[in-house]
Amino acid sequence: MSADKTNEQPLAEAIVKQMIERDHFSRWLGIEVVEIAPRRSTCRITIRAEMVNGFGVCHGGVTYSLADSALAFACNTHGRVTMAIENNIGYPAGVAVGDILTAVAVEDSATNRLGFYSVKVTNQGGIVVAMFRGTVYRTHIEHTTNQ
Amino acid sequence: MSADKTNEQPLAEAIVKQMIERDHFSRWLGIEVVEIAPRRSTCRITIRAEMVNGFGVCHGGVTYSLADSALAFACNTHGRVTMAIENNIGYPAGVAVGDILTAVAVEDSATNRLGFYSVKVTNQGGIVVAMFRGTVYRTHIEHTTNQ
Amino acid sequence: MSADKTNEQPLAEAIVKQMIERDHFSRWLGIEVVEIAPRRSTCRITIRAEMVNGFGVCHGGVTYSLADSALAFACNTHGRVTMAIENNIGYPAGVAVGDILTAVAVEDSATNRLGFYSVKVTNQGGIVVAMFRGTVYRTHIEHTTNQ
Amino acid sequence: MSADKTNEQPLAEAIVKQMIERDHFSRWLGIEVVEIAPRRSTCRITIRAEMVNGFGVCHGGVTYSLADSALAFACNTHGRVTMAIENNIGYPAGVAVGDILTAVAVEDSATNRLGFYSVKVTNQGGIVVAMFRGTVYRTHIEHTTNQ
Repeated sequence: MSADKTNEQPLAEAIVKQMIERDHFSRWLGIEVVEIAPRRSTCRITIRAEMVNGFGVCHGGVTYSLADSALAFACNTHGRVTMAIENNIGYPAGVAVGDILTAVAVEDSATNRLGFYSVKVTNQGGIVVAMFRGTVYRTHIEHTTNQ
Repeated sequence: MSADKTNEQPLAEAIVKQMIERDHFSRWLGIEVVEIAPRRSTCRITIRAEMVNGFGVCHGGVTYSLADSALAFACNTHGRVTMAIENNIGYPAGVAVGDILTAVAVEDSATNRLGFYSVKVTNQGGIVVAMFRGTVYRTHIEHTTNQ
Repeated sequence: MSADKTNEQPLAEAIVKQMIERDHFSRWLGIEVVEIAPRRSTCRITIRAEMVNGFGVCHGGVTYSLADSALAFACNTHGRVTMAIENNIGYPAGVAVGDILTAVAVEDSATNRLGFYSVKVTNQGGIVVAMFRGTVYRTHIEHTTNQ
Repeated sequence: MSADKTNEQPLAEAIVKQMIERDHFSRWLGIEVVEIAPRRSTCRITIRAEMVNGFGVCHGGVTYSLADSALAFACNTHGRVTMAIENNIGYPAGVAVGDILTAVAVEDSATNRLGFYSVKVTNQGGIVVAMFRGTVYRTHIEHTTNQ
């Protein structure tokens, strides 16, 4: 089920649909896939009271998980099972309960085995709350979907 | 409530006790603080079925959150409110449901305003599942505890 | 010599002019400042035979240094002495002797004390050869220039 | 020329000897390989006047290059051509002209295709001046040496 040009968008959607169904952690977090395109995804989350850290603000792991899920969806649209091997994240601004965060993941570059992605996370006011870069490893295993 | 030598260990414990009480996300994850010392912490988690990603293995955000919480506890033992500004994580090995992960956070260096930490995460078999480095910003605000 | 709006561009230029004059390492590398604007810089380098690593291709430290210099120039245009505290870089494609690399550094976000920057490095064919993110610390020391 | 146990140390030395001979950039920097062992290296540099940045202190790219070279030597001792794909570095302390820096690179973990390394850089006084983590890709190409 490799991706040719005409098939790219439906393949991307079928793969991500299947991934999110199985992704219990993203579902617990309430991560919503807003948009999917080949090598690109947009995800959203609303910060709940149970997501705070010891200072009463959003735990950095929640913002990270949103970015990481957006990365996972974007980098698997290629059609091959692909996993993050190294990620980094900067936190320019705090996140509070009730904030709505949007993560946009885009592919900067890819080779046969590796992919390089950037993810920008903004809040409902358009303020950048996280900048993230992810490096992924592309296995030779093709996704199988019911598409 | 700044830290002098004799007071360091009880201060560290009082601060982290207060942080974990308020840290709803770490508590939902089931993160347990195994050991606390000045500029150092050890935390543990058991991976549950609700923590998997779209491939049925532990979501990278869970492992990250464990490391990030261990970092937060370690870097706040100083006595001043301190926050992560930039973290990175590598994933050398996968994590499955039922695995028990241990994160050890240690301070590599600190200045008045900044701190640099390393966190190593291993599973129950001693396999390294994540390597993490965190950079933190130390505010001038002292922790207030009931100590 | 703090930056008000009308003064921003000349201040940025004066600061970077002074920095590059003193920056012996960037000058040895042959780094050229192509464009400067507030919170933004573009730098260029041509890879020479003496810049190769043990495999005969461009040493990763050269590409990194270009990105790091572009970051340094961009983040000091604010008017305050500012230093990188944590950087990361991914290498999606190799670089050969004779290649001409261009680094564009942009500010993603800044607070009073911290700044977050992204740098993209492309070769003469527009291929992305490095993605870089830098976190900087802004001291309270104002740049003094002859401007 | 794959590595069996008895052959590991001479193989490591032969590979690194050949790499450093070809590594013009490390040689220009004056990087000296102090010690080599399988999956491990120690390298040293003395900071010269021509290595300063716009503030008259050691350019971050020099410290990075030392760490990156130490990583390259350590990760190629396996016997297969291996390249850095993603690195990160923190700078806890400044470096001045005349300082002697020592980088110790160690393997944290490796799979068939990937390796994860940590590098610690200290100055002549034992102060940590950089913490670095590197992720490498191991090709299927064996090193050929005159060993």
